[in-house]
Amino acid sequence: MTERADFDAQAMAERVGASMYAEDAASQALGLNVDAMGPGYARIVMTVRADMLNSLKICQGGLITTLADAAFAYACNSHNELTLAAGITVDFVAPAREGDVLSAAANEVSQSGRTGIYDVVVTNQNGETIALLRGRSHRMKDRKTLPTEKDTDADAGNS
Amino acid sequence: MTERADFDAQAMAERVGASMYAEDAASQALGLNVDAMGPGYARIVMTVRADMLNSLKICQGGLITTLADAAFAYACNSHNELTLAAGITVDFVAPAREGDVLSAAANEVSQSGRTGIYDVVVTNQNGETIALLRGRSHRMKDRKTLPTEKDTDADAGNS
Amino acid sequence: MTERADFDAQAMAERVGASMYAEDAASQALGLNVDAMGPGYARIVMTVRADMLNSLKICQGGLITTLADAAFAYACNSHNELTLAAGITVDFVAPAREGDVLSAAANEVSQSGRTGIYDVVVTNQNGETIALLRGRSHRMKDRKTLPTEKDTDADAGNS
Amino acid sequence: MTERADFDAQAMAERVGASMYAEDAASQALGLNVDAMGPGYARIVMTVRADMLNSLKICQGGLITTLADAAFAYACNSHNELTLAAGITVDFVAPAREGDVLSAAANEVSQSGRTGIYDVVVTNQNGETIALLRGRSHRMKDRKTLPTEKDTDADAGNS
Repeated sequence: MTERADFDAQAMAERVGASMYAEDAASQALGLNVDAMGPGYARIVMTVRADMLNSLKICQGGLITTLADAAFAYACNSHNELTLAAGITVDFVAPAREGDVLSAAANEVSQSGRTGIYDVVVTNQNGETIALLRGRSHRMKDRKTLPTEKDTDADAGNS
Repeated sequence: MTERADFDAQAMAERVGASMYAEDAASQALGLNVDAMGPGYARIVMTVRADMLNSLKICQGGLITTLADAAFAYACNSHNELTLAAGITVDFVAPAREGDVLSAAANEVSQSGRTGIYDVVVTNQNGETIALLRGRSHRMKDRKTLPTEKDTDADAGNS
Repeated sequence: MTERADFDAQAMAERVGASMYAEDAASQALGLNVDAMGPGYARIVMTVRADMLNSLKICQGGLITTLADAAFAYACNSHNELTLAAGITVDFVAPAREGDVLSAAANEVSQSGRTGIYDVVVTNQNGETIALLRGRSHRMKDRKTLPTEKDTDADAGNS
Repeated sequence: MTERADFDAQAMAERVGASMYAEDAASQALGLNVDAMGPGYARIVMTVRADMLNSLKICQGGLITTLADAAFAYACNSHNELTLAAGITVDFVAPAREGDVLSAAANEVSQSGRTGIYDVVVTNQNGETIALLRGRSHRMKDRKTLPTEKDTDADAGNS
């Protein structure tokens, strides 16, 4: 890619991340923060809260998965092609505890036709691996992640 | 099994379910309800709330996973052998929307040594399949899910 | 379905199974036998040979997977819609040894759009579970598994 | 690690690879070659033969899995701790055809207690990704992959 194309792809990824997060009630409710966006890349951070612990007083695995799945979703939409998660495989490597700051970094591994494979690594504040997610994504045909300009105009007109 | 053993296994599963839920902040915060427990079995219900939706206004896949993972965890502890989730594979079959009542039914498929395989089916209020989870569990050596009688006595002594 | 439709679906599945096997060099080389076909269903049998053992003198896991994957492929093509495996998850539950007769039974679990989920259980001659496979299939658009009548006519004309 | 420890770990991995392959009938029958061994690493090569093709004239997915699973098995035994595959997830990215030379490179991603996670990438002679495997391994307690010196002596005595 030219420098210009790189710049555009990076700017697009950042626009997509901001646009998604503004409408993403689940990520907001769980205190997720989008730390970085790039083409085929996203990094999201979550602090483990008391209300995320299971009966063993460790973070519920599904909530670690929610963090990793969010990073996966943001990364696979970073090209502004509307993309859904079709399936995930998660390995839980080490437990996370209250107050731990978990960071999920998602990277595109392959894209072929409308199917993509993404790898997400979740680490804690000490750099220890907590979980690994591999996600399979499915790109919708001819649909963008960002609202179209037309939609945006209409929204603007309503406000 | 004799009828007596069946009865005991059922009663144990119910005791484990109640004991786990009482200490399970994450399940309580997400409004999960343990609908049924049995030996190698659990069914848990969750209503999709507005704060569980992602930017597409469908339930975040990680939160569907959290429900399914909870059913898996309760089922694999139902024999009162302390057991952790080692890994999961989730396929997202159909989207869930605000107000949908999701039910996750977990069944033991195999148990060999300290490793178990559990299948969880998540359906909505119309009986449609929303997601499928397959979980791999790892049983801890010589540890019970329920607090020991000794611990219970000690607790009683303190109160 | 009416009885007639059931009959037609069963007959179609059997035609697909026979047609696939006739061209399936890998299944023939490994001694696989298609034991049963039905709509969304296939059962394939393999006897573990000496040349399927790894250094531990147990059947190589990939070859157990090959058996299970074949059952998956035959089941997901049983409707005569050309379908490919997109991904699989396999859990190895117990080892298989030389002379063991392994049977892989594949069942359709869900079909939504062009994506299907299939479960395969591999058992040995004693009914013990050896492995579990869950497969994700992808149906090609407007393509049949069976050669078209036109192709068949052309083939006939050549012979 | 010191240079000396690095050297020893590399030499051990190579000894394990040679010892495993000498007894590995399945890998020999399928024409697999162990191209490289290292600590937590293995690379194995397979040429797609006519008898590996399915009815679509592409390499049966289970045989691609067999190659990837072999690389996984060699990598997770490279430390000379006897280790078995517990489960695998495979994504099929692109088809492989007769004559293609497939290379499977396996890397240790995490090791915690007796459970390991390994990633395997299968590429063809053009460097295109054909499949991705993620494997979960289980290390046996107090057992070595290499035959013990005592066993070796006994074998020597018998010959």
